[in-house]
This record gives sequence, C-alpha cells and structure tokens, in this order.
Amino acid sequence: MLTYDLGQRGSLPLYEYIYQRIRQDIITGRLRRDEKLPSKRALAEHLRVGVVTVANAYAQLVMEGYLRSVEKRGFFVEDVSSFRTKPEGARCVIAGPPRQEYEVDLSSNRNSTVLFPAATWARLMRETLTRDPHQLYGVIPYNGVYELRAALAEYLRRNRGMEVDPNQVFIGSGTEFSYGRLLLLFGREKSLALENPSNSRIAGIIRHFGSVFHSIPIDGEGLRVDALEASGADVVHLSPANFFPTGVVMPIRRRLELFEWVNRRKGRYIIEDDFNSEFRYQGRYIPTLYAEDTQDKVIYMNTFSKSLAPSLRISYMVLPPRLVALYRDNLDFYSCSVPALEQYTLARFLEEGFFERHLNRVKGFYREHRKHVLEALEASPLSRLAMVEESPAGTHLLLYVRTGLSREEVRRRARERGVDLTFYSDYCLPGTGLPECGCRGQQVAVLLNYAGLLPGQVEEAMDRLTQVFAAEKGRRVSGKGE
Amino acid sequence: MLTYDLGQRGSLPLYEYIYQRIRQDIITGRLRRDEKLPSKRALAEHLRVGVVTVANAYAQLVMEGYLRSVEKRGFFVEDVSSFRTKPEGARCVIAGPPRQEYEVDLSSNRNSTVLFPAATWARLMRETLTRDPHQLYGVIPYNGVYELRAALAEYLRRNRGMEVDPNQVFIGSGTEFSYGRLLLLFGREKSLALENPSNSRIAGIIRHFGSVFHSIPIDGEGLRVDALEASGADVVHLSPANFFPTGVVMPIRRRLELFEWVNRRKGRYIIEDDFNSEFRYQGRYIPTLYAEDTQDKVIYMNTFSKSLAPSLRISYMVLPPRLVALYRDNLDFYSCSVPALEQYTLARFLEEGFFERHLNRVKGFYREHRKHVLEALEASPLSRLAMVEESPAGTHLLLYVRTGLSREEVRRRARERGVDLTFYSDYCLPGTGLPECGCRGQQVAVLLNYAGLLPGQVEEAMDRLTQVFAAEKGRRVSGKGE
Repeated sequence: MLTYDLGQRGSLPLYEYIYQRIRQDIITGRLRRDEKLPSKRALAEHLRVGVVTVANAYAQLVMEGYLRSVEKRGFFVEDVSSFRTKPEGARCVIAGPPRQEYEVDLSSNRNSTVLFPAATWARLMRETLTRDPHQLYGVIPYNGVYELRAALAEYLRRNRGMEVDPNQVFIGSGTEFSYGRLLLLFGREKSLALENPSNSRIAGIIRHFGSVFHSIPIDGEGLRVDALEASGADVVHLSPANFFPTGVVMPIRRRLELFEWVNRRKGRYIIEDDFNSEFRYQGRYIPTLYAEDTQDKVIYMNTFSKSLAPSLRISYMVLPPRLVALYRDNLDFYSCSVPALEQYTLARFLEEGFFERHLNRVKGFYREHRKHVLEALEASPLSRLAMVEESPAGTHLLLYVRTGLSREEVRRRARERGVDLTFYSDYCLPGTGLPECGCRGQQVAVLLNYAGLLPGQVEEAMDRLTQVFAAEKGRRVSGKGE
Repeated sequence: MLTYDLGQRGSLPLYEYIYQRIRQDIITGRLRRDEKLPSKRALAEHLRVGVVTVANAYAQLVMEGYLRSVEKRGFFVEDVSSFRTKPEGARCVIAGPPRQEYEVDLSSNRNSTVLFPAATWARLMRETLTRDPHQLYGVIPYNGVYELRAALAEYLRRNRGMEVDPNQVFIGSGTEFSYGRLLLLFGREKSLALENPSNSRIAGIIRHFGSVFHSIPIDGEGLRVDALEASGADVVHLSPANFFPTGVVMPIRRRLELFEWVNRRKGRYIIEDDFNSEFRYQGRYIPTLYAEDTQDKVIYMNTFSKSLAPSLRISYMVLPPRLVALYRDNLDFYSCSVPALEQYTLARFLEEGFFERHLNRVKGFYREHRKHVLEALEASPLSRLAMVEESPAGTHLLLYVRTGLSREEVRRRARERGVDLTFYSDYCLPGTGLPECGCRGQQVAVLLNYAGLLPGQVEEAMDRLTQVFAAEKGRRVSGKGE
C-alpha cells in the first residue's frame, strides 16, 4: 500500500502533496508501468484523509496523463519511461549582456531626463488615475484614445498649419512600431526608398521584414528627386525639414519637384519623418510637406520620445484618407499598444499648453548647451585639427578632423578613454559607396551628439576627445597658449 | 514698395506675419519670378519695423526657398509657379469606422473591467510616480525593467515551478508584439507550425510577415506529434495546458513525444503559449512544458491582457539561454515598448501578492458566472436543440446546435438581434479542410465567449440566442412547460 508521511507536506494542500508524491514515484519508476493503484477509498483510509482528497489527486494525475482510469477496474500507471528529470534546484543563470560603460556619451541623441517636467507629468497622471476605470483599463480603439488623437490634431493645426481629422491619427508605441505598421500596410508590392545618409531606424526594420529598399543621395537641397525617379520606388521616406546630419532644409522648389514625382504615378506616397523638427535654433518651424500637399499623398510621422522622454514610448502618424480606410480594413485587429493612462495624460499635457512650454524650455536649454559645446571646442586644441559644421536643428555637430587615423582606430582610442562616439559614415546606408560619406582624404567626420552630454561634462568631453586624436604617434598637439 | 498692414497680424509675431504675407504674394504670383525685393533696410523703414524683423522674415523665406539671396545684389523671388494652393479651411473629415453596436457580446474573450482592481492599481501607480524621474523617464533596458523581470521570475518559480533567470524574461506590449519579435528572431529559415484550431493571433501575424506555416491537427490528447514530424516544421506553437476550444490538456505521454520531436533535430523549438492558463476551474495549474524541459528548447509566453486588463498591454516571454544571446545580438536595438511606470507598478503588484489575490477573485467570479450561464442555457428552450461542451478552463463554452441554418444565416440573424457571436470554425486555420470543424451534419458549433457578458445580461442573452435559432421558417420552439 502506498504510504506517504503527510507531516512532510509543509504548506501544500493535502491533495497537492499526495499528487506530487505519486507523480514523483511514477517518474522515478518506483511505481511501475501498468501497476494498479489502490482504490480511492482504500488509499484515503490508509492515509487517514478524505476520499475527496485522494479523488482530486488521482483526477489531476489522470488529467496530466500519469494515470489512466479504467471503468470498473481502477487506476493504472501510464508509461513515462522516457521522462528525464531536471536536477533539483538547477538554476540557469544568465549573465546580463556585457555593456561597455562610457563615461562620456557623445553618441546618444536622447535627451537628458533632467529636462523632463516630471512634477507636472506626475500630477496629470494622478489626476488621470481618477478617471472611470472602464476608460482607463478597458479596450482602447486600435488607433488610440480619441482625446489624444483630437488633442494632437489641434496641436498640429495650431502649430504646424496642418488640417488633420482625429481619425487620421494613429498612436503607436515608438517609431519602430509605427514603421512596422506602415510596412505591413504597404505590403510587399510597394518598393521603398530612403534618404542616404539617414538616422532613422526604418532601414533596420525594413531589413528585418526581409524587404529591400533603394537608397537616394542628398545634395545641398535635400533628397535628389531625379535619383528617386530613376530608382522606380513607390514610397519615399525622408525628413524634409532637417536632413541628417547636415540639417539641410528642402526648399520649396525641390519640394514641388517631389510633389510632381508623387503625383506622376498612382500609388506613390511620401513618408515625412518629422523627428527632430522641434529642435530648431534658427527661425520658425519649417512648413510640413503634409500642409503643402493637395493630393493626400503624404504620411506624417513624429514621436514624443525625443521631445518628451524616451521611456514614454509614444509616437504617431497621420495617414491620408485612402490609407485610413486601408488600415481599418487590414490592420484593425492589432490593438493599440500604448496604455490608456499615458494617452489621456498626454492629451491633457498637449491641451493645457504644457508641451509647448516644455519645448520652449528644452530649446532654450539646447541653445545654451550648444553654444557651450561650440565654445569649449573652439577653446580646445582640437580646434586646430577640426572644422565644425553646425546644424541649424537637432542636437549634434559634425566635426571634420584632420588625422591619419582610420575610423576603427579612432573608435578604439575613444573607447579606451571612455568616450562613445559615432561617425557620419555610421549613418550612411551600407553598400551605397558614397565617396564623400565620412572620409575626405586624411579626415574623419565625427558626429558629435551632445544631447546625452551633461553641462558639467562638456570641458572634460573636449579634453578626452582631444586626447583621442592627439595620441597619434609622433604628433604633438599643443595646448592653449603655446 | 511692398506694403502690408501690420495691424492685421493679430497675435502673430511681426517677422512671422511679414514672412507669411510675402510668401503668400509669391505663391499667388503677385510677386513675380526673379523680381527683386526691397533691401532689408528699405522695407524696414517703410513698414516702420526693426531691420532685424525684416532680416528674420527674409532669412526664413531664403531657407524655405521662396527667395534667393545674391551677394551684393539683394533678394530675388524664386520660381514656384507649379505651386497649387489648398482651399482655405478645407478640412478633411473622416468618418470613424462604422462599427456595428452589439448589445449582447458573446464573441469577446476580454474580461469585464469591473473585475479590475482599479483602486489598488491606482494606489501603486501613485506611489511609483514618486520614484526617481531618471528611472521613470530614462531609457528602459531592451528586455524590460529589471524589477519586473525579477518579480516575474519569482512568480513563475513560486506558482509554476519554473526556474527562470530575470535575464531570460522579455517584456512586450502585447502578445502580437511578442510574436512579432519571435518571428524576427527566427528569421525566414525556420518553418513554423501551429495547432489547428487556434485562438491565437499568431496566424495573422505570420501571414503579415509574408511567411507560411503548417497547421497541425489536434486530437483527444492535443497536438498530433506524428503530424508535426511529417510537416517538417522547425518551430511549433501550441497551448498544451488548454487547447482551444475544447480545453483538452496534453497528457505527459504526448508531451514526452513532443520533447522527443524537439530533440530529434538541432534548431527545433517549442513555443508554449500559456494564455488562459490562469482560468482553470478544475484542479490545479497544469505544469508547463518549460518546467519539464531539460534541453532548453521551450519558449514560454504569457500575457496580462486577459488576467489583468486589456488596456495595460503587457506581455512577456521567457527565452532559453541560446535565444537570449541571439536576441541580444540581433534585436537589442529595438527599445522596450512598455512605459516604465506600468512596469514598476506591475512589479510591485506581483511582489506584494496582489496579482494572486486578484486571480483568485476573478476565478471565483468566473466560476459563478459560468454556472449561471450553464443554468440559464439549461433553462432556456435552446437546451432542446443544443448540446453543451464545457471547457475546464477559459471563459467560453461550445454549443452544438441542431439546425438547418447555415453559419452565415445564423450570423446574420444574430446580428439582427444585436448578438455578436463566433463559431468553432472561425478558429480553424483556413485551407485545412478539417471536416469536423464546426459542422457535423445539421449542426453549427457556436463558440460562446462569456467573458464580455455581464451577469445581468445572461438571461436576455439566452433569450436572444434562442430567437436566433427559433426563427427558422416553420420551426416552432416550445417554451418552458409546454
């Protein structure tokens, strides 16, 4: 007769303990295949428990297939001879990814969180938490909460002169998400083109989808529309207010060429990626292609990750009417992936003018910060080796440094000195062989992102950067005053 | 000389108003191509504004390409003759998608929000809002906030006997998101298999990726492993604790066959989709394949959308070590798309036992609700026409109804009566021609989801459902007592 010491069960319910002991005995073979177990009543009497307790344990074992129940005959052990047990307490310990720690971050284009209006945001969040739970926790419309879409439509109208109906707005959890949706929407029939160079993540996402794209060069007026036409692409992605990294603005004449291109054939579209447009230091906002388009061919995209905070993960796109219908017919089963709480809070943040106030504050900060960085550069020995190309928008500078070092050597020396930096060429789409992309003879073009650099780190950053280039064999970089 | 009435500018800054007026004149042709504009000083004196104001307006127009600046000569109008203007105030109004309103929802498997512990969740949120802003708003690790991954690992250990390292956990914004990541991870070289029928959204997502999959039939012990082997697939997706819709549990012997399959060739994996596992009414939790696997071949997936709230959009997967490294090397540039606030809050919700308490409450509710629905069915005339197949888990019932009506007719009649319902066959993967899937002769198999049905609606739902089937020409369904 099966015997188990029920005093050993600790906090486990009786039936659970009995279930586990029998299961263990079956696995180890102590109870053999086809062996008949005691009747429920007999085992219950023997163990001094209720019949129901044994019945539950047996039922679980039958359900999981360790026992079979044969009518009028009883319970029999099933064959589990191929069962391998895991060593008890074996714990898989995975090391986190080894990440180089950089003391000076010149590569990230993410804002410092010190600028985030945490107190205001938290207050609005707390107020939003008092809303009807059904609104906060129930199903969200697939294109996002109406209030946010309406607040965004109004913001775009007031600030960018764009006529947008809330039903054209699609809220997403980050630009990668929105890009993914667009790719699904267009399917594989449409061929895509991207500007080159580009700091958009769309290239990686397209590759992941297993699609290909054409890369279109940029000149002093932005994307080359003749090259776009020659590529045969149907859909082009670009940032017309701020081509990366030089910040060139596509003037009206080139825009008109682009509109002619998009209207020349059916099914062509423009993806206007307006990321970074808020960080303009000279002049007002550049009008959007969306606002100038009369044929509903422009998809407008933007995100709050840069202008607000990276962890909020809220992006949006404005689709022309034809694509709104297409989205609804094909993709509406995908739920909106941004929690309702953040959406309602952002709606208020926009409606009550906090966003505009925040942007002004951030722009003011970056204006000063940029000045600081430029002055520190000018004052450092690096200024003898380097030519600075400022961008009228964004949070980066281009630094053309005269040096015999290769990019790999520069990157290595930088890493050794705790500096994380990127090169112009990092943003060039591979395989395009742009000759001027990064190396003009004995030069490297460093892309210096100062968004992640704290004000107190600026001078040190310049020092370390100087060291990176000064460390060439035989080269002596004179300090100030020599 | 250009003249503008500056009194008309309203709240616009001076330079902005002048910029707009000149731009408008260029577009309408009032200022002709190649026409020379007044010097900055001359216009400033004429309009009685500062030279800086005119300089800013001109600079913006140059930047946007409406003017060109010729050194020592002045400012000239560019050619924008192909510019088409949008009618002023033209507003695109898009109707929201026409959605049928159903009074009785028998199709949705989403919990009613009345069960959500809103007060507790809101309290934890408010407390989380007092955390360091850098944590709340800074960049989140790509696999999710550590505290949540650790809390989940501990929860899985304690409740499901799974040994999980926090670094194996990947937080996502919904199961569709997690499926998408897995598909990217496996790439196009691996072929996929799904159980059929299935209520998983993974089928649609695979199709959207442009991939194909094999569909594997289910029998009384779950997925047919012989059919899986014959398919040649590398990766199989299934819900072994609760095959949809019958709720069949894969017994240990079939699981051992499945493990033999996965270990027979390199590169095979099992995706264990444990959605719905918490809603079990009979017996304890079914052990997971993950816990029984000794070869690190199981990917475990689950979501909080069903057990907590659909709007929270938090899902997770546990990857075996080999795939953790692969993810890190290939997909770590994708940021985590769930806001940090929700992640920290959920971590506490798990750590402090609120989730387990909530689950017990929800299970208790559904146990009662299910009983209520079954009793109402039994008491209704429909019971003469229908055979009920209960599922030991989940929030649905299968109803085999004897009728001469086709599914399309039933759906139409239901819609006319404000009832939204689904059929067993809706969950069968298309093109598989499963003969028993839904129609056994003069029958339709209705899948009655009662998650979205409020307790007060139950009797009315049964009435309306009865009407759907009673409305056949010539058929009279006798009421109770006849």
